[in-house]
Amino acid sequence: MFSYSKCLDIIENQLSSLSLEKKPIELYQPIRYILSIGGKRVRPCLAMMSHSLFSDSVESVIGPAMGIELFHNFTLLHDDIMDNARVRRNYPTVNVKWNQNAAILSGDAMMILAYQLISKTPINILPKVLDLFNQTALEVCEGQQLDMNFEKCLDISVEEYLEMIRLKTAVLIAASLATGGITAMADSKDIEYLYRFGLNIGMAFQLQDDYLDVFANNHQFGKSLGGDIVANKKTFLMLKALQSSDKNLVHELETWITRENFNPDEKIESVKIIYEELNIPEKTRQLIETYFTSGFEFFQRIHVSDERKVELCKFVTQIMKREH
Amino acid sequence: MFSYSKCLDIIENQLSSLSLEKKPIELYQPIRYILSIGGKRVRPCLAMMSHSLFSDSVESVIGPAMGIELFHNFTLLHDDIMDNARVRRNYPTVNVKWNQNAAILSGDAMMILAYQLISKTPINILPKVLDLFNQTALEVCEGQQLDMNFEKCLDISVEEYLEMIRLKTAVLIAASLATGGITAMADSKDIEYLYRFGLNIGMAFQLQDDYLDVFANNHQFGKSLGGDIVANKKTFLMLKALQSSDKNLVHELETWITRENFNPDEKIESVKIIYEELNIPEKTRQLIETYFTSGFEFFQRIHVSDERKVELCKFVTQIMKREH
Repeated sequence: MFSYSKCLDIIENQLSSLSLEKKPIELYQPIRYILSIGGKRVRPCLAMMSHSLFSDSVESVIGPAMGIELFHNFTLLHDDIMDNARVRRNYPTVNVKWNQNAAILSGDAMMILAYQLISKTPINILPKVLDLFNQTALEVCEGQQLDMNFEKCLDISVEEYLEMIRLKTAVLIAASLATGGITAMADSKDIEYLYRFGLNIGMAFQLQDDYLDVFANNHQFGKSLGGDIVANKKTFLMLKALQSSDKNLVHELETWITRENFNPDEKIESVKIIYEELNIPEKTRQLIETYFTSGFEFFQRIHVSDERKVELCKFVTQIMKREH
Repeated sequence: MFSYSKCLDIIENQLSSLSLEKKPIELYQPIRYILSIGGKRVRPCLAMMSHSLFSDSVESVIGPAMGIELFHNFTLLHDDIMDNARVRRNYPTVNVKWNQNAAILSGDAMMILAYQLISKTPINILPKVLDLFNQTALEVCEGQQLDMNFEKCLDISVEEYLEMIRLKTAVLIAASLATGGITAMADSKDIEYLYRFGLNIGMAFQLQDDYLDVFANNHQFGKSLGGDIVANKKTFLMLKALQSSDKNLVHELETWITRENFNPDEKIESVKIIYEELNIPEKTRQLIETYFTSGFEFFQRIHVSDERKVELCKFVTQIMKREH
């Protein structure tokens, strides 16, 4: 069973051996840049660790695991254009450091590179890996579209929000884990459990992100705290608060949302207080816990000894515990 | 042997049976739109006709042929953003009719749909089809990057220009023809000939486009005549003219290029006269002819009876003759 740090080593090694010193440099430089500014490589490591539940030779999962990582980074490049984001992982985004066209075209090339890596999958399992990847990639686009739609839309329900993050975030986590099962030629039932495990922990990851943006204890989280509040981002916390029956507090929250001139720190503090009065932190933690627990119910059903499951279990738990 | 019109029927049929009535509509509507505003479907038809050189059953080529058409349309969506184009095939571009983000994300989804169609290739030939497609798709991005670089660069050589159009245009024509050979399980020599046939006629197509933008006899060409001249586009004609030893005419041309206020019709007429005095139309026709002839030398080497080659020969010749 491979540990996270062992998988991370392999992935970083593979990333630095990608032949990206090619011409035209204007196309490949932004790709090298986005891959070099870090990231925890969660998805490829999940794929590898999932594969290693069943098999000690990880050869056949490396191509698709790398493909998933490149695809994920491609989505970051394009999302940053669409969101007009200026900072990513504490570095300037490609659309800022270069320009928008560079981010579009280098992103396109990255998606093709992702497929080139996926195509390295042994032929007997290639169709299955490819089908899941294609379906997932399309769902991620659908999720991004919903996310953009929500920006212009005033009344989003909590259910609609959960469907959006399922598509935008959770399905790629689910597909990473399932891909590891496919490349290890696991039983189809186990592949299904891996997928559902991933879907649930993917939901938990995203809700945790929403939560930590407001309630993290320090700044290790990478983004400045309260950014979602300042930007009126429709997160679970905000939607849940807006749905409350306490009309006074809802009205107060709406006032902050519509106010055009404000002191950001004051807005963050005030909205945090509203959230706390509405018991939103607790409700969010409960929902995270629910997804986390459901995920692990599927994980437990996988027909593999507990001993082999230790590393993957540790890794997923560690991701969730990072800032609590 | 399938005729162009038969192939076109099949492709149009397949296009209209793609299930694109999905949600979120904001993602899928621009895809339906770009596919509905026409185009001659040259690439998928080349793939099908190439396949039908060797085989009477076209089943296995349809997936990749459709994938190539979707990929081609994806490149149009993204190129139109990067070029800030407002009109495509006489209709408003997606970035104008919707907005830039819609064009980015719907383009991304189209590329994934392209891969979904490619993935329908029978498993025994899938790796070969996928490898060629991946390599070609990356080259098309490289070509687009070079094209963008050239806009900002003052001295492009004719050779650099030819390399750019090889990547941006010719390799996809080449890959379309080679893919038909691969799906028909043709001999590797014949697949190579098909590729080289396509590379040469692809070059001829693009040079013909450059030529017709200035010298077409009527407006059926779709774009308004002289658009490249007005926009100072670095086409073969312009680069060849700038390379001339007639310093007076080169200087006159440069004056038109740098002039900021001008009457477009006057500029077009004046530059046309310079081109004619420098014998550029004839030189362009000669180069087109050279590529066309080289292409057909490879076509002739393909180990298939002349009878089977008639339709493909007719189609390629027809494309080239469209406006002469």
